[in-house]
Amino acid sequence: MEAKRPFDVLNGSLNKDVIIKIKGGIELRGRMVAYDVHMNLVLENTEQLENGEVKRKLGTMLLRGDSVIFISPYIP
Amino acid sequence: MEAKRPFDVLNGSLNKDVIIKIKGGIELRGRMVAYDVHMNLVLENTEQLENGEVKRKLGTMLLRGDSVIFISPYIP
Amino acid sequence: MEAKRPFDVLNGSLNKDVIIKIKGGIELRGRMVAYDVHMNLVLENTEQLENGEVKRKLGTMLLRGDSVIFISPYIP
Amino acid sequence: MEAKRPFDVLNGSLNKDVIIKIKGGIELRGRMVAYDVHMNLVLENTEQLENGEVKRKLGTMLLRGDSVIFISPYIP
Amino acid sequence: MEAKRPFDVLNGSLNKDVIIKIKGGIELRGRMVAYDVHMNLVLENTEQLENGEVKRKLGTMLLRGDSVIFISPYIP
Amino acid sequence: MEAKRPFDVLNGSLNKDVIIKIKGGIELRGRMVAYDVHMNLVLENTEQLENGEVKRKLGTMLLRGDSVIFISPYIP
Amino acid sequence: MEAKRPFDVLNGSLNKDVIIKIKGGIELRGRMVAYDVHMNLVLENTEQLENGEVKRKLGTMLLRGDSVIFISPYIP
Repeated sequence: MEAKRPFDVLNGSLNKDVIIKIKGGIELRGRMVAYDVHMNLVLENTEQLENGEVKRKLGTMLLRGDSVIFISPYIP
Repeated sequence: MEAKRPFDVLNGSLNKDVIIKIKGGIELRGRMVAYDVHMNLVLENTEQLENGEVKRKLGTMLLRGDSVIFISPYIP
Repeated sequence: MEAKRPFDVLNGSLNKDVIIKIKGGIELRGRMVAYDVHMNLVLENTEQLENGEVKRKLGTMLLRGDSVIFISPYIP
Repeated sequence: MEAKRPFDVLNGSLNKDVIIKIKGGIELRGRMVAYDVHMNLVLENTEQLENGEVKRKLGTMLLRGDSVIFISPYIP
Repeated sequence: MEAKRPFDVLNGSLNKDVIIKIKGGIELRGRMVAYDVHMNLVLENTEQLENGEVKRKLGTMLLRGDSVIFISPYIP
Repeated sequence: MEAKRPFDVLNGSLNKDVIIKIKGGIELRGRMVAYDVHMNLVLENTEQLENGEVKRKLGTMLLRGDSVIFISPYIP
Repeated sequence: MEAKRPFDVLNGSLNKDVIIKIKGGIELRGRMVAYDVHMNLVLENTEQLENGEVKRKLGTMLLRGDSVIFISPYIP
């Protein structure tokens, strides 16, 4: 990856699976289908993870950017 | 869903049931009848959930956007 | 209710009893007699609730908007 | 009281005793002698309360507005 | 004191001892020798207090305004 | 190092390994390949550390700047 | 010291050792070699302290200003 700016990671992850750590210790995995400048994200087929295991299926969601700690492309 | 921008999820959820996770670990389910650019939301027939069970009925409410972690269309 | 925007709920609740959840887990019930764009609110005959019971009478108060989680019309 | 705007409560409380709940669970009682648009307040003869009892005398203070949860006229 | 605006308390406390409560429950006492519009403060001969006793000497410090809860002129 | 401005440290760390402390007590080590004015960072080969030991491999990530406490060039 | 403005303390501490208290209860000691208007700081030879003892050596770091509680010139 030749990232020039942080948002390039978001753009490069469109329609791909990502792992997202959010405040409060929650971890999510889902397909990122949209984002905006506030890092608000739309995820599809979202699953809440616990120690790498699926704890709960959450489907489509709009995640507020200010809840995000980090976003990581998912490599199975 | 062909979401182009995060707020499309809000618009697509108007007058439909949504699950909302808010800060402090509270989870709500209700019909979203209005929203604004701050993600302030109006919910009707709102219920507070605990492990997927209805814990308490809260009726209509105005929920402040900065309390929201994520919003998810509800699929029964 | 035909809410078009979130603040319509505030306007429709003027001079009526509301339930307000604020940060820190406190719940209040009182008559809302004023609000502004920051969601700062004036409540009268305010009572602090605990599990639906009146814990303490607080009378008139100015509540800062950034403490608010949600506001709900009170239905006795 | 015929409050039209939340700050009318502040203005109407000038030179009167108020109860103030601040973040961190602290409660204060004192005479409010000044305020500004940020809700920064000047209190005189301030006392820290615990369960309605005076725990400590704090005299004059400048209280930062962003610490305030609510302000209530004190009725002895 | 005839405070007209909250910052008058800061101005009136220049080169005098003050008690400052900061977030996280810490209490400081020191001579305030400078402040700015963000309530950033410079204190000299600062001491950290615990239940009114000196716990630790901290000397000169620049204290960030957003850490401040309240500032009180010190009366020995 | 002759740092004139804080962001010089970021620029000087491009394509080098850094240790990052983020809110919530988490510590990360990875190669920083991009940053922006908000201190949003892109890390590659990121590892989560615990007491200096690798706890988990996280690969590439976009880390939100407002989660950062400090960034330190990594010296093996 | 004749500080006229809080940032004079920062300027007067350039290339000198400082003690810094940051949010989360962490205390650092290091040589401050740069700062900006957000109080972002560059420290060199940074050490994390615990009860005045060196707990860990951290070397050079960029510390985000919004993590800072106070900065104090270090007097050995």
